[in-house]
Amino acid sequence: MTTDAVALSADLIRCPSVTPTEGGALLLLERVLSAAGFACTRVDRGGVPNLFARWGEKGGKTFGFNGHTDVVPVGDAAAWTHDPFGGEILDGVLWGRGATDMKTGVAAFVAAAVDFVRATPPGGAIVLAITGDEEGPGKDGTRALLDWMTAEGEAMSVCLVGEPTCPDHLGQMMKIGRRGSMTFYIEAEGVQGHSAYPHRARNPLHALVALLHRMTAQPLDRGTQHFEPSTLQITTIDCGNPANNVIPAKARATVNIRFNDAHTSDTITHWAERLCAEVTGQTGVTFALTTEVSGESFLTPPGAFVSLVSRAIVSETGVVPELSTTGGTSDARFIKDHCPVLEFGLVGKTMHQVDERIDVAQIEGLKRIYTRILRDYFA
Amino acid sequence: MTTDAVALSADLIRCPSVTPTEGGALLLLERVLSAAGFACTRVDRGGVPNLFARWGEKGGKTFGFNGHTDVVPVGDAAAWTHDPFGGEILDGVLWGRGATDMKTGVAAFVAAAVDFVRATPPGGAIVLAITGDEEGPGKDGTRALLDWMTAEGEAMSVCLVGEPTCPDHLGQMMKIGRRGSMTFYIEAEGVQGHSAYPHRARNPLHALVALLHRMTAQPLDRGTQHFEPSTLQITTIDCGNPANNVIPAKARATVNIRFNDAHTSDTITHWAERLCAEVTGQTGVTFALTTEVSGESFLTPPGAFVSLVSRAIVSETGVVPELSTTGGTSDARFIKDHCPVLEFGLVGKTMHQVDERIDVAQIEGLKRIYTRILRDYFA
Repeated sequence: MTTDAVALSADLIRCPSVTPTEGGALLLLERVLSAAGFACTRVDRGGVPNLFARWGEKGGKTFGFNGHTDVVPVGDAAAWTHDPFGGEILDGVLWGRGATDMKTGVAAFVAAAVDFVRATPPGGAIVLAITGDEEGPGKDGTRALLDWMTAEGEAMSVCLVGEPTCPDHLGQMMKIGRRGSMTFYIEAEGVQGHSAYPHRARNPLHALVALLHRMTAQPLDRGTQHFEPSTLQITTIDCGNPANNVIPAKARATVNIRFNDAHTSDTITHWAERLCAEVTGQTGVTFALTTEVSGESFLTPPGAFVSLVSRAIVSETGVVPELSTTGGTSDARFIKDHCPVLEFGLVGKTMHQVDERIDVAQIEGLKRIYTRILRDYFA
Repeated sequence: MTTDAVALSADLIRCPSVTPTEGGALLLLERVLSAAGFACTRVDRGGVPNLFARWGEKGGKTFGFNGHTDVVPVGDAAAWTHDPFGGEILDGVLWGRGATDMKTGVAAFVAAAVDFVRATPPGGAIVLAITGDEEGPGKDGTRALLDWMTAEGEAMSVCLVGEPTCPDHLGQMMKIGRRGSMTFYIEAEGVQGHSAYPHRARNPLHALVALLHRMTAQPLDRGTQHFEPSTLQITTIDCGNPANNVIPAKARATVNIRFNDAHTSDTITHWAERLCAEVTGQTGVTFALTTEVSGESFLTPPGAFVSLVSRAIVSETGVVPELSTTGGTSDARFIKDHCPVLEFGLVGKTMHQVDERIDVAQIEGLKRIYTRILRDYFA
């Protein structure tokens, strides 16, 4: 008896698990995994459901999978061709929210892991860390699982995140790292006055323009060996002064930075603080800088783990995966502090969109790749 | 019998003529002027009350006075020490809204003109063009008077505006010109996108920062013979994008420019359009520029009229007035297209403030100066 990853995917889609609702998704997985001999623990924190499952003894060589069962809202429900929580399969296509991001990815690694331990019990452990909060704030999701694992002496030797990573066809791309992401909320404070008498005022907008010009005039870097250049984007500037004869007292700006391994959030914060100080020195306008770090950049450099995953992809698909560090953030940003982490999964084209869907053949292909990775890892 | 400029000032203050309310102020002046033989005409337009008065025949040598009877709102009425519309005189100080800006100035030139034509009927005409909308939009105030005068063949050989012009003591400063004022409303339009993928978007905020940096990096000029340097102030920048992972499609800025006689609104508009085109060429972000011109700069250069007013001030106060072009705009910006125009009046320290007030001695002094100007002009 093998586990049908497609049927499991459809069953998961039928669980309406919009973040942070559990929706029955983790309960379903717990039943499937327990039946195969996995020790399951719910690691709920802050209203977020999480599931930890281990086959084998802790403390030894352990392969980890990470993924999430929560999904983003359906958006305009009337615009969907098929019920977003129907899990319908038509002409080889599975429709529904989570069909790419990432109930299918979870189903593929759960099915692979269950069948693998049944068929050829490995000389080590397999851990599945599955969260119900990846699409939300992410505070009590994978982080809660990792905190709990640390406290319990649970560990992973390596971890594969099953997020969709391929732009167009299966096997095309794996992620060996991600840029970091951080946001500055800048408030400039000057001295209000009359537009006709600027020498009696200090215009915070002029200082803000000078600061933002310095931040944007030069690229942060030209890229590194494995990363594209870091980017900095001003996402808003706001003042709200309706009077064109008044110099305002305050203005605000938000700057979002995606940074590669040439930086850390600390080095970028110091850089921004230095620019602020320079402009303050020239203008007398002061800046209050609030920093929000979503995640540091990280890299699992090419080596044994990357080669193992890469070879499995080539063997099953004939495609050599690009080793990429592009894209936004993922929960790999938390896992990288615990063990080497890579990301590989389906084609993500329709993720977060109306009519999210996937060819069922891709799900089966992904299960085969995950199975081969487990076999090679424990060989 | 002479006309008491102080009593007339107090009577005018008792007329609650907050723009655009007439409040009885122009009716009072019309009564006083008619009784002295002035031909009075109400030149109301667009709901704004205006009064035109002429003594003598039209077509000959004509001295003009210009001023306004409307006042700005009282603000926090409870904060006033004396009733803002009470016209109280205590210890030689007249209190109330309009005590400096500029019911007193109007009272001083009305009293001077009335007494002058009664005592020594001049060989020419005196025209008083008094508006009830200088503090408001100004669309139907002095402009309506000038339009009507042109249509009626009425003219002024020279004009003196009775606005408060002295910073600290009477006689200290007269205005021989004013900077122009104009405002650009700039809308930048780019292409929306994800902060993590800026190469797929065009950030209008980056283009706006580049544009505003160019506009503010260098002064517009270093001043001219009679003018301080022109100034440019960004008065607001607004975008209203709440999402730090989104590059917005549009952003707006407002820029106010006070410019001297090195520029016209046209040359500045061309300059701004050129900068916009440069930034568009570099970024692909387009700009829509809306231009609002409040007034061109103007100058009545030192010469016969300036000397006449200046000498009268020196004779009555012992103070040599500074010939200034500082400050905001005044209705002189409209009059300069009709005849040489100067501005001279009281100390404006408390204008627009709570507890606006003036020493009554200043009002009497101003009446004496205006009288001497008339006498010298018609001598």
